[in-house]
Amino acid sequence: MREAMAAAEVGDNVIDVDPTIKALEERAAAVLGMPAALWTPSGTMANLIALSVHLQRGDRFLAPKGAHVLTNELGSAAWLAGGMPEALEHDAGPGRPTPETLTAAIGPRIDTYFSLRTTLLCLENTHNAAGGAIIPPHEHAQLLATARQAGLRVHLDGARIWHAAAALGLPPAALTVGVDTVSACFSKGLGAPVGSVVAGSVTFVERARRMRQMLGGGVRQGGVLAAACLVALDRIGDLEEDHEKARRLAAGLAEIGWDVNTPETNIVLVRVADLEVTLKSLWAQGVLALPLGGRVRFIAHRDLTMADIEDALRRIKAGGHP
Amino acid sequence: MREAMAAAEVGDNVIDVDPTIKALEERAAAVLGMPAALWTPSGTMANLIALSVHLQRGDRFLAPKGAHVLTNELGSAAWLAGGMPEALEHDAGPGRPTPETLTAAIGPRIDTYFSLRTTLLCLENTHNAAGGAIIPPHEHAQLLATARQAGLRVHLDGARIWHAAAALGLPPAALTVGVDTVSACFSKGLGAPVGSVVAGSVTFVERARRMRQMLGGGVRQGGVLAAACLVALDRIGDLEEDHEKARRLAAGLAEIGWDVNTPETNIVLVRVADLEVTLKSLWAQGVLALPLGGRVRFIAHRDLTMADIEDALRRIKAGGHP
Amino acid sequence: MREAMAAAEVGDNVIDVDPTIKALEERAAAVLGMPAALWTPSGTMANLIALSVHLQRGDRFLAPKGAHVLTNELGSAAWLAGGMPEALEHDAGPGRPTPETLTAAIGPRIDTYFSLRTTLLCLENTHNAAGGAIIPPHEHAQLLATARQAGLRVHLDGARIWHAAAALGLPPAALTVGVDTVSACFSKGLGAPVGSVVAGSVTFVERARRMRQMLGGGVRQGGVLAAACLVALDRIGDLEEDHEKARRLAAGLAEIGWDVNTPETNIVLVRVADLEVTLKSLWAQGVLALPLGGRVRFIAHRDLTMADIEDALRRIKAGGHP
Amino acid sequence: MREAMAAAEVGDNVIDVDPTIKALEERAAAVLGMPAALWTPSGTMANLIALSVHLQRGDRFLAPKGAHVLTNELGSAAWLAGGMPEALEHDAGPGRPTPETLTAAIGPRIDTYFSLRTTLLCLENTHNAAGGAIIPPHEHAQLLATARQAGLRVHLDGARIWHAAAALGLPPAALTVGVDTVSACFSKGLGAPVGSVVAGSVTFVERARRMRQMLGGGVRQGGVLAAACLVALDRIGDLEEDHEKARRLAAGLAEIGWDVNTPETNIVLVRVADLEVTLKSLWAQGVLALPLGGRVRFIAHRDLTMADIEDALRRIKAGGHP
Repeated sequence: MREAMAAAEVGDNVIDVDPTIKALEERAAAVLGMPAALWTPSGTMANLIALSVHLQRGDRFLAPKGAHVLTNELGSAAWLAGGMPEALEHDAGPGRPTPETLTAAIGPRIDTYFSLRTTLLCLENTHNAAGGAIIPPHEHAQLLATARQAGLRVHLDGARIWHAAAALGLPPAALTVGVDTVSACFSKGLGAPVGSVVAGSVTFVERARRMRQMLGGGVRQGGVLAAACLVALDRIGDLEEDHEKARRLAAGLAEIGWDVNTPETNIVLVRVADLEVTLKSLWAQGVLALPLGGRVRFIAHRDLTMADIEDALRRIKAGGHP
Repeated sequence: MREAMAAAEVGDNVIDVDPTIKALEERAAAVLGMPAALWTPSGTMANLIALSVHLQRGDRFLAPKGAHVLTNELGSAAWLAGGMPEALEHDAGPGRPTPETLTAAIGPRIDTYFSLRTTLLCLENTHNAAGGAIIPPHEHAQLLATARQAGLRVHLDGARIWHAAAALGLPPAALTVGVDTVSACFSKGLGAPVGSVVAGSVTFVERARRMRQMLGGGVRQGGVLAAACLVALDRIGDLEEDHEKARRLAAGLAEIGWDVNTPETNIVLVRVADLEVTLKSLWAQGVLALPLGGRVRFIAHRDLTMADIEDALRRIKAGGHP
Repeated sequence: MREAMAAAEVGDNVIDVDPTIKALEERAAAVLGMPAALWTPSGTMANLIALSVHLQRGDRFLAPKGAHVLTNELGSAAWLAGGMPEALEHDAGPGRPTPETLTAAIGPRIDTYFSLRTTLLCLENTHNAAGGAIIPPHEHAQLLATARQAGLRVHLDGARIWHAAAALGLPPAALTVGVDTVSACFSKGLGAPVGSVVAGSVTFVERARRMRQMLGGGVRQGGVLAAACLVALDRIGDLEEDHEKARRLAAGLAEIGWDVNTPETNIVLVRVADLEVTLKSLWAQGVLALPLGGRVRFIAHRDLTMADIEDALRRIKAGGHP
Repeated sequence: MREAMAAAEVGDNVIDVDPTIKALEERAAAVLGMPAALWTPSGTMANLIALSVHLQRGDRFLAPKGAHVLTNELGSAAWLAGGMPEALEHDAGPGRPTPETLTAAIGPRIDTYFSLRTTLLCLENTHNAAGGAIIPPHEHAQLLATARQAGLRVHLDGARIWHAAAALGLPPAALTVGVDTVSACFSKGLGAPVGSVVAGSVTFVERARRMRQMLGGGVRQGGVLAAACLVALDRIGDLEEDHEKARRLAAGLAEIGWDVNTPETNIVLVRVADLEVTLKSLWAQGVLALPLGGRVRFIAHRDLTMADIEDALRRIKAGGHP
């Protein structure tokens, strides 16, 4: 990846001619099944741009409880993109609202000038805070149909869409069917140092490009980063290996009595009595876990081997954590 | 009331010398148990000002599900005041979250620069969308203590605080104990044509006055309106009469099999199969009801007599509504 | 006026049925030569609504230096309406930019996604900070043509348009030719206690109504205020009397050596060495003047007689002000 | 530079441990004479963060006409940072307002709750749109003193501060004396592919880090970029070579009768009759120039040799441009 970066052909991407960024955007659009895509420095910015383009001031948008746009982006969906959020229960399973819950949240359509307008559904697949949980294609289809029937647009936060696709044995584009826009990230499970995309129609990407510039996300010779993202894209077929590591980690933690999720992809979540105490204890053992929604989150990624997982389990057992 | 308006002494309230506005603000502050108050043209603006002063961009605030600031103010709490809302379940009763629910929503305090900050609790007493439901003083005290313990500020949307006070047989100030700010309205159940207040510390009111001007809520000779608000304040002792009318209406509707709430104050809510059909049918019968959160809302107010209530019931029965 | 207010027929104007507000809006639209109009509690809100509807986030708008939207509305045109302002020099006379200045400010049209877009011209007639200065119809026409040629929309801040019309002996509609929207005020020179309008197309007014509600400017029984505004509208023929008083005041001040403007309407502006000292000295003499753009502003209005003007001059002379 | 990027040590910079970013921030802070610094993906974001932290909603800020924050950042200073701008004339020379102009723009201090507050001066050194013009240290000192006297904060847009320092033969820190914050860029004249910093007090940087995350500017393994920025910092001593090329280009253009500026640093600006025609003609000749404020802008940078400059001049002469 570093070699690709060192060799990348670059241009000035503010005036729109960096060839490597262009190549990445075209390939990402194709992989995601969308007409066009735009590179952004982060997944947070990719989502923020999509919401800013979709929402008029005060529009209500719906997202599953704990969604990244609700809890991990410092409220920018509200103050900056201008949306009034409402969280949907996960009543179909982790990270998955039922169509009935969605219908109820949309509510009856009584259109007065003084009523809040619900205009956007924001899905997240996999759902980070729900432990990397997958929305399967048939549920995606039902939610899409319900949203469309009510006239809503749909944005998919696909930061981890690669994991959902790998776990399901499907191409990523099979999971974006019918959405208006999708964001995806190269810097988390895929290992690129910096970079995401937001994809949609050509018109959307034109507006998104302007919004990116407004937010200060327009960079000059971004090709050095895009080169790494292109390498990352080659890896999306290998992610099932990380999922296996996550399953092993979860099984090992369950053996010692920890309250752990059943990982669907690469995220392991543990419910503990005192989050702060457990985290500090883990860090002292050299196990880097982070808090997420009141739980401890472990990520299985490409730079960890199965042996590393076993080693971590040994340390955790030795640590006698609460 | 019209006489009081015609006789009102006025000044230019932008440069802050309208004597009738001043008198209203002082009296409202005293009645609400707060150091100072500011007149606003609407309850929506009163809440909007309070939230704008309390919230930094992106701060998370909590409010009971269906709160006016979440659903009836066109999302201005998000796009304009800059807050990221989270709705609290009514698990202690209509309009009333438990302290446990509040604690869970606040979450563990892991203070990193990249985490959302929860800084405000917004209560509503009575809670409009929950059918004019009351938060009793001991529950108010528990919620306040929980919020304070977590370092949150507290704003009380008291548009209908007069009704809660009348129903409980308490002075309004007994229901604002410990809050930072409270809004209250003179134009709903109290019958003034135009006007609300937002009350808090002297420093808060100074900042609120500036925010009111920013929003275009600074008016010149507002004294003509404040005169009516002062008359309205004289009536807060009479509201129990309206509550009695609401109870009679609810009982009559229940008799004919309607799915009606048990009114705690002056609001009657009915769940119907098809909201639009029922509303149109009622309007055709000359019964003016409005939709609220997917239900039909009736308000019992001072310009309706008990005979009017009986008359409305007769029409509704005759109408054979669904 | 108080009688009209006391007798006003009212309704709930949030759900849009207050008959007196409706009558005022229709009459104001007709007088201003626009298809529709919307009542607002203040002129600041009227302008703020127009700018919010016209501007997309970050759009550049142009306005003559010292315009009310630039200097007297606490920056809401920027932070709330989202516009990036640029001030135009008064090179055609007080309050009046030339078409050449406007053309230069618009600049060459190089439309890239990363360039600021200039989309709105905001005129002000009469121009308050320029001493109630008038834009005559032929200059208005030239500025309109220049703006249109460049694809700009045009909003006219007509808070004092009544004065321009009276001084020119023209109907107000003669001064709104070609604009998209115009705001006008009933509470300044016309003497109504509270109220303005913003007028434009039917579609504009629909969007404006929603924005008014967002800002908290939707009031319930606003008819009591609209009744006064209707009386105020009857007075627009009498304003030349106030202009005569202003000319007399200016002449008197010039006699004693004050550096005074040549009032075109009802505003007299005086340049002084130390603004604060002079204002305090005037107030001590019972002469209520206010600061405006670093000068002392006197207003001649209907509640002052010519004798009051002479009396004020006597006091000022006696006061030996600096 | 590519080698440095390929070898960079990285960490996750969202959770704040990327060692190369940290090294860059510390070195940049030292070079700029500030206590702390924060890496950002662009100069636009660096300025946007500074303005967002400094400004309260609606605060007025002052900047020289044509400043980058006014004209090249898509209005984000207004709609996002919330500031109401006012442009200062360049009456002391290109890009340089006099203290008298600054004082007049600040205006008399009449502090009412309804008056606009001027709280920030934003300087730009060198001033891009004024042709890379330098504010010399003694003028900087005078402007600072004037701003401080009036209680203003000062932000310096130092995207090109390296050029001012090189041309004056001073260390960059000599040009930031007394400012609250300064931004600087590594990706323009210094040649790094991506990256800027914004520097100020430790408290400022804490708030800035949060704002960067809000805007989506927090990246993961940014060290690969920071490595290039560190190399770029080594080059600030060589910039005088670029200035010499600019002077040669300007001299050559003047010889053939073009209306060209006297370059103080690396920017050459030419006034032409028809901007679009000239640009297309230059591009056809293989000379990449861009429009800036209605003029043609040429940049002399490290990837151009003096021979390239001569070659460009030959082509331009041959082109017979208008």
